[in-house]
Amino acid sequence: MAMTKLTSGSSGVGRRDFLAAGSVIAAGWLSPRSAIAAPGENLPPNVPEWMKAQGAPILSPPYGKPSPFEKDVVRRPRVSTPTPTASSTNTPLQDLRGIITPNGLHYERHHAGVPAIDPDQHRLIVHGLVERPLVFTMDDIVRFPSESHIYFLECSGNSFWSGTTVQSTVQQTHGLLSCCEWTGVRLSTVLTEAGLKRGANWVLAEGADAAAMSRSVPIAKALDDTLLVYAQNGERLRPEQGYPLRLLLPGYEGNISIKWLRRLKVGDQPFETREETSKYTDLMPDGTARQFTFIMEAKSVITFPSGGQQLRDKGFYEISGLAWSGRGHIKRVEVSTDGGISWSDARLQEPVLSKCLTRFRLPWKWEGSPAQLQSRATDDTGYVQPKRSQLVDVRGLNSYYHYNGIQAWQVAQDGAVTNVV
Amino acid sequence: MAMTKLTSGSSGVGRRDFLAAGSVIAAGWLSPRSAIAAPGENLPPNVPEWMKAQGAPILSPPYGKPSPFEKDVVRRPRVSTPTPTASSTNTPLQDLRGIITPNGLHYERHHAGVPAIDPDQHRLIVHGLVERPLVFTMDDIVRFPSESHIYFLECSGNSFWSGTTVQSTVQQTHGLLSCCEWTGVRLSTVLTEAGLKRGANWVLAEGADAAAMSRSVPIAKALDDTLLVYAQNGERLRPEQGYPLRLLLPGYEGNISIKWLRRLKVGDQPFETREETSKYTDLMPDGTARQFTFIMEAKSVITFPSGGQQLRDKGFYEISGLAWSGRGHIKRVEVSTDGGISWSDARLQEPVLSKCLTRFRLPWKWEGSPAQLQSRATDDTGYVQPKRSQLVDVRGLNSYYHYNGIQAWQVAQDGAVTNVV
Repeated sequence: MAMTKLTSGSSGVGRRDFLAAGSVIAAGWLSPRSAIAAPGENLPPNVPEWMKAQGAPILSPPYGKPSPFEKDVVRRPRVSTPTPTASSTNTPLQDLRGIITPNGLHYERHHAGVPAIDPDQHRLIVHGLVERPLVFTMDDIVRFPSESHIYFLECSGNSFWSGTTVQSTVQQTHGLLSCCEWTGVRLSTVLTEAGLKRGANWVLAEGADAAAMSRSVPIAKALDDTLLVYAQNGERLRPEQGYPLRLLLPGYEGNISIKWLRRLKVGDQPFETREETSKYTDLMPDGTARQFTFIMEAKSVITFPSGGQQLRDKGFYEISGLAWSGRGHIKRVEVSTDGGISWSDARLQEPVLSKCLTRFRLPWKWEGSPAQLQSRATDDTGYVQPKRSQLVDVRGLNSYYHYNGIQAWQVAQDGAVTNVV
Repeated sequence: MAMTKLTSGSSGVGRRDFLAAGSVIAAGWLSPRSAIAAPGENLPPNVPEWMKAQGAPILSPPYGKPSPFEKDVVRRPRVSTPTPTASSTNTPLQDLRGIITPNGLHYERHHAGVPAIDPDQHRLIVHGLVERPLVFTMDDIVRFPSESHIYFLECSGNSFWSGTTVQSTVQQTHGLLSCCEWTGVRLSTVLTEAGLKRGANWVLAEGADAAAMSRSVPIAKALDDTLLVYAQNGERLRPEQGYPLRLLLPGYEGNISIKWLRRLKVGDQPFETREETSKYTDLMPDGTARQFTFIMEAKSVITFPSGGQQLRDKGFYEISGLAWSGRGHIKRVEVSTDGGISWSDARLQEPVLSKCLTRFRLPWKWEGSPAQLQSRATDDTGYVQPKRSQLVDVRGLNSYYHYNGIQAWQVAQDGAVTNVV
């Protein structure tokens, strides 16, 4: 029987095998708690209470909310911070399927809280090394030719270098990561309106929050795929995502995609703001600092099974997770269930888009013995997600940002899943 | 000067023309209200109030909400109905960008309100012409191999045959239309578990609402791309979209994608339920009825400028809208600004996906004279969206469902946009 290969507990099961297996998998897959009705048994069973009375009316509310049974699917603080206005919350990746992050669950990172901005009063100023300094209203911005793209956003502080802080769940280890369909105007369109002067090499972007969050954008990226974004998954930006206007640099560390964007100043050199000198730099073993480390390298993580979850019994499970690269498309994701000894190719869910999350899946039969799950992404540049030891060899242990090492989850004999640090 | 072609008011302006135009467009594009700062003027202008104090903290709330300034972006009832539990609400298409509908704005159509279902108590029953009748818990369902796809859903009652009810906005004319990333299990996977018996030609799907909403699914579609869906834009289904489990038949009329799915009965012929006899059929001029008209044919609509909107002044605008086909991909969208005399190809936003909304856009310079805007979709079968007169010629005026005629919006000399009926 073809399915005998299912007994090799540590290797993945190909989809073709699964589909060909039919009822053979069925017998192995169905959990003991699933009732298999006897032929002739009176079906369907008793009518549930909620079929015996009218349900809730339309417009309750006109802007819908999740089921009360999903009340635990929420953002959570990443770490304890002295003030909740200079803090962050993480997306509950363990509860999500597919690639889209619903707007209500997009991760947050604020330096002075979320400003309440009246879009009619908001202005975008473009000045510096330009022919025509300009001031735009939101009405002006939305009249420009627009584009929509599904892009991930990840904070470069996502995932910890230090092994001392134990993060239990994938929400804690990788939750500064979200993915939405963003709509806006190419920054190049607006810069062309203003007219760049000779020597225009960098653009300062400033937010309208109380921190006046500021970063320097290299002109090549500014004239490439950078967007001035005003919509997120169809609707206008959420306040905590920069309402009414944000910058979005696809594939770059989240911090540079300035929210509540109010000012663009064109200059001939980087502006050396706090967020690119004292922060968002990494100390290397030789004492030098890595600065302007914009691009988020290829990375992946298994979201099921992941830390804090529990396999209830032996049998079939689908291992599932997310992969992404700031350089382009995900080309391949491999999954190991034996701690990195052997690897199987996961299926990638189409469409596989550039600088976007890619959902991967691999059928797996858990035999009830300990297993260690890992995933490894490769992008279309050929870059392969490194092991932690490979990262530490090069960058040492004083780094804070841009950790993209392979994540491992341990499945214990009782089915409990924990973070391997 | 290359831009003189912009003075032909009724034809579209190619993107290449626009981009090549640079500051020439700028002069024409920028509205009188846009301040063009004089060189040397003190920039940026005064610091707004919201930069002078800390903003809102993280987790306010942990599941985020839109800005209070977007309070009018909500679902609205399509028509007045005797009871709000057997009614519908429409998606505000005029306010949305891109292709994704946020879950809180997905259109609703309920026949007995929205049941409040405890997912732990919910069961899916599979019986009838099967080898093994089965009962599944939600835990069972989510263990199966899963898929994610971005698909549109449209009620076949979307858009009116009758010209007597004047619908002012695109929310009213086309708002029984939404598009999400759906995740679930292939129905074929579950049917294979149960084992189909000889003569299995149709599957009855029944909802767990008080109407026990029921439809018959042809076995070919059931074994093709039909999904048992439990997640929507990442998170679990919303209550009004069938929480915790719904059927989803890509490209078919929305009514057959049974929500709150509790029962699948396999039979040898259609079950002739109320929703496929007295409803969801259309009376033809010869007195016969069209029944089982599942597929939503190619259709499109301009969402900006659309009914109820106002162009504030002459100059550049981007015409934008949505196109979709239940048969596959959108191949082409043409836009007319002179009431259907001349047509220009709109840009289609990538990725163009099968049975999914496609966003189209066309640059346009409004000269301040009356204009009539229309869009016309063609799908990859070669089917071209018909004019209203072409539909009426074939199907008469007694139909109610499956109206996919070309929609026209009139722009008056003062910039007011109205529905052309």
